[in-house]
Amino acid sequence: MKKKISLLGATGSIGVQTLDILKSNPNTFELVSFSAGLNIDKVREIASTFQPNMVSVIRQEDAKVLQSEFPRITFVYGAEGLREVAACTGADILVNAVIGSVGLGPTLEAIRAGITIAIANKETLVAAGEIVMDEARKFNVPLLPVDSEHSALFQSLNGENPKEITKLILTASGGSFRDVTRDELSNVTVEEALAHPNWSMGSKLTIDSATMMNKGLEVIEAHHLFNIPYEQIDVLLHRESIIHSMVEFHDTSVMAQLGSTDMRVPIQYALTYPHRIPMQNAKRLRLEEIGQLHFEKIDFKRFKALALAYEAGKAGGTMPTAMNAANEIAVSLFMKGHIPFLEIDEIVERVMDEHKTIVKPTLEAILEVDRNTRNTVYAMVQ
Amino acid sequence: MKKKISLLGATGSIGVQTLDILKSNPNTFELVSFSAGLNIDKVREIASTFQPNMVSVIRQEDAKVLQSEFPRITFVYGAEGLREVAACTGADILVNAVIGSVGLGPTLEAIRAGITIAIANKETLVAAGEIVMDEARKFNVPLLPVDSEHSALFQSLNGENPKEITKLILTASGGSFRDVTRDELSNVTVEEALAHPNWSMGSKLTIDSATMMNKGLEVIEAHHLFNIPYEQIDVLLHRESIIHSMVEFHDTSVMAQLGSTDMRVPIQYALTYPHRIPMQNAKRLRLEEIGQLHFEKIDFKRFKALALAYEAGKAGGTMPTAMNAANEIAVSLFMKGHIPFLEIDEIVERVMDEHKTIVKPTLEAILEVDRNTRNTVYAMVQ
Repeated sequence: MKKKISLLGATGSIGVQTLDILKSNPNTFELVSFSAGLNIDKVREIASTFQPNMVSVIRQEDAKVLQSEFPRITFVYGAEGLREVAACTGADILVNAVIGSVGLGPTLEAIRAGITIAIANKETLVAAGEIVMDEARKFNVPLLPVDSEHSALFQSLNGENPKEITKLILTASGGSFRDVTRDELSNVTVEEALAHPNWSMGSKLTIDSATMMNKGLEVIEAHHLFNIPYEQIDVLLHRESIIHSMVEFHDTSVMAQLGSTDMRVPIQYALTYPHRIPMQNAKRLRLEEIGQLHFEKIDFKRFKALALAYEAGKAGGTMPTAMNAANEIAVSLFMKGHIPFLEIDEIVERVMDEHKTIVKPTLEAILEVDRNTRNTVYAMVQ
Repeated sequence: MKKKISLLGATGSIGVQTLDILKSNPNTFELVSFSAGLNIDKVREIASTFQPNMVSVIRQEDAKVLQSEFPRITFVYGAEGLREVAACTGADILVNAVIGSVGLGPTLEAIRAGITIAIANKETLVAAGEIVMDEARKFNVPLLPVDSEHSALFQSLNGENPKEITKLILTASGGSFRDVTRDELSNVTVEEALAHPNWSMGSKLTIDSATMMNKGLEVIEAHHLFNIPYEQIDVLLHRESIIHSMVEFHDTSVMAQLGSTDMRVPIQYALTYPHRIPMQNAKRLRLEEIGQLHFEKIDFKRFKALALAYEAGKAGGTMPTAMNAANEIAVSLFMKGHIPFLEIDEIVERVMDEHKTIVKPTLEAILEVDRNTRNTVYAMVQ
C-alpha cells in the first residue's frame, strides 16, 4: 500500500524536493493534499501531476479559480484551509515545510489527528517546543526530523539508548560569511548573504545560515526533539557540510551520518523511516574526491546569533518565541533592504533584553508574544 | 548479574586492554577463565587479581607449578587446555584475542557450546570464514567484532537493515610507511616497521599494518561477518584513524563511527552490546582540536598485500587460508631479520600463485593447507 503524504509548503525549497521524491517513487508514495502560497501556476502544475484530494492556498479568490479548473479536487484557503490540509485528509505523514511560526497551528492539528509529522518547519519547535512535544507524547505521534542535521542525529541514534548520550554535536558550515570578520559584515549586501557555499535552500534559511541563527534554531529544535539539555548540545564549525551531525555516547564512541549536500536524502528518510529506499539521480559521497574535512571551534562573539539562541533556549518559556519572531521580521527587513546585515542580531538582542519571559506559557500566550514581538520590531525600525 | 568473561590471549595487546576494562568495571564483569602463553609472571598477576576458575598455559610444567601456587584455580595446558577454556567454563562471552590461526579451533568449540564470541582473532575468519559463520548460524551464536574497523561497521549497522547496504567502507591509516614509496621500502628495518603512527597494537598486527595485509585480512573478515560481497567492500586511506569505518546505504546516506584511537572502546562495546557503559579514563574525541581529516584513494600497486587479499578473498575456498599462513610465517621471518620487508608480499604472492584452491574445504583440509603452507614458506627461505 502506498504511503499517503500531505505536504504543507509545496512550492518552497523543501516542498519542491519532497515532490521530486514522490514523483520518483510513484509506487511508494501518494500525495493526498498540499498547501501553497500565492504561486498559482505552480499549484496548477502540482495539482495536475499528483491529482491530490485537497489543496489549500492563501487567497479565497485563487481557491475559487482553481476549483473551477480542477472540479475533482477540493480547494480550501487561508489559515482554516491550512488546518484542513494538515488534519483532514487521511494522510499517513504530514510534511510540514512552511517557513516561519505559521507552521505551528497545523502541526498541533495534525498531532491531535494522530498523523506522523515530518518536521521541516523548525520555528514550530522553537516557538512552542514544549507544547508541541507534550502533545506529541500525549497522542503518541512521532515527529520525524527533515533538517539534515536533525536527520543525522536521528539516524545516529538508530538502535541506540538515549540514556547513553553524552553530546549531540551539530555541524555548521558557517554560511555565506564564514571567512569574513564581524567588522567586515557591516556593509554586506542581500545578494552576498544569499550565496550559501554548500546548500541550496530557501532565502530566509540562507540568511539565517549567514547569521548562524539557523544553527541556533537547530540547537533549540534538537533540545526538544531529542529531549537533551542545552549543556549537552555542541555546535562544531565544519565548512564542507559532509558530516551532517554526530552523537557522542558515554563510552566515548561517536556516531555520525555523512553524505552529499542533498536535502532529498533526509527528506526521503523521514518519509521511508524506519526503512531506506534507493535515492534516484543522487550523488554518492566520495571522500577520496573531497580529500579533506575541516573542523573548528565556534567563535560565539563572531556568530552572536548563536549565542543569543543558546541564551533564549536556556531561558525557556516564551523567550525563544520572542527571539524567533524578532529574527523572522529582522531577516525580512534585511532582505527588503531596510536594515543592514548586523542589525539582525542587534534587533534580536534588543527584543530579548526587553522580553519578560512567561515560564509555562499557554499556546495563546505564545501566539500573543509572537504577534507582539513582530509589531515591536516593525515599530523599532520606523 | 555479572557477565562472565572468558579470555583467550590474556597477555597480548587486546588481552591486556580487555583486562583493564574488566578491572574498571568489577560490578559488571567477572573473568571466569583465561589463556596465556609463556609469560608465567603475568599469568600469576592476572590469576591473583581476578581469581578465575580456570587458566590455560602452553606448557604442562608451567601448569603444574601454577597449580601448586593457586590450589583453587584449575590449570590446564596446550591445545586441549585452550579448548577447555573456550568451551567449558560457563562463560557468557568468549573474547578470542589470540594471534594467528591457532584461534580457529577454540572459536569453533565455543560456538558449539553456545557461547557468544567477541572476535579479535581475525585469522579465524580469514582461514575458515565460511565454516565458522556456518557454525555460528547453525548454533545461533553471535560473533561480535572487536577490531575497531569492524566494530565501527557493526555500530553503523545498529538498527539498520542489511539489505539496504551498498558499501562497507573500511578506513586504513596506511601504517608505518604510508608516506614512503614502494621502492624506498626495500631497506626498512624491523624497528621502523614497528612504529605505527596511530594505534598501539601487538607487533604482528603492526607489521601487517605496514604492508596493509592487515586491511586485507579485515576486508575478508568483513565479508564473512557482514555477509557482503567483496565488490561492495571498499578501503579508504584515512591517515588520522578517527573515522573507524563507514557503511553506505542505498539512499546514499553514510553512517560512521568515530573516536579516539583507543582499542578499549570497541573491546568494551563487544562486551556490553547492545548497551554502552561509560569508558573509564578515556579521551573524548575533539574534532576541533584535530582540525582536519584526510582521505585518499588506495594505491593497490603501492599496497600490494591488499590487492592480494582481495584476490584471495574472491577466489575463496582455501586460498585465504594459504595467503594467511604464508603471511604469518613471512612476517615472523621479517621480524627475526631473515628476510627484507618487501619479501613478505612476494612470499605471499608466490604461495598464492602455486596454491590450488579447494573450493568447499572441510576443516581438516583447511588445517592441512595451513600447516603445509607454513612448511612451504620455511622451505622457501632456507
